[in-house]
Amino acid sequence: MARVIVDVMPKPEILDPQGKAVHGALPRLGFTAVTDVRQGKRFELEVPHVDDESLAEVHRIAETLLSNPVIEDFTVRVDA
Amino acid sequence: MARVIVDVMPKPEILDPQGKAVHGALPRLGFTAVTDVRQGKRFELEVPHVDDESLAEVHRIAETLLSNPVIEDFTVRVDA
Repeated sequence: MARVIVDVMPKPEILDPQGKAVHGALPRLGFTAVTDVRQGKRFELEVPHVDDESLAEVHRIAETLLSNPVIEDFTVRVDA
Repeated sequence: MARVIVDVMPKPEILDPQGKAVHGALPRLGFTAVTDVRQGKRFELEVPHVDDESLAEVHRIAETLLSNPVIEDFTVRVDA
């Protein structure tokens, strides 16, 4: 059994209201070291074994179900 | 400027309805390679420089604002 990670983040040119809300809350909580925050999603997918076929399927899942390609970018990687 | 990644995932013993919904949708879409899905959040925090102090602050932010320690685990890492 192996784990494949799909990270989905808003594209850089897309407004990210969730990240902005977190960023706006930081100074009110006394945190000053962070200059920007972006929020996305992380998916952990279990597959019986990692090969070209299962990775291609995870890629199609990421493209069609886990992300909205109009406003989000995704990356697929095998968990170390 | 450096980027610090905070990944927040539901604890293993906690039900994850979002992940279950994704997992349940996969066979209906013709995907058969994935045996489990868990969904969490990914935050990208920009800091002017990475040092013990800024990492400690990101750790406190993750603990108090980005995650609910009762039901979620988080990891902090500097983006390669």
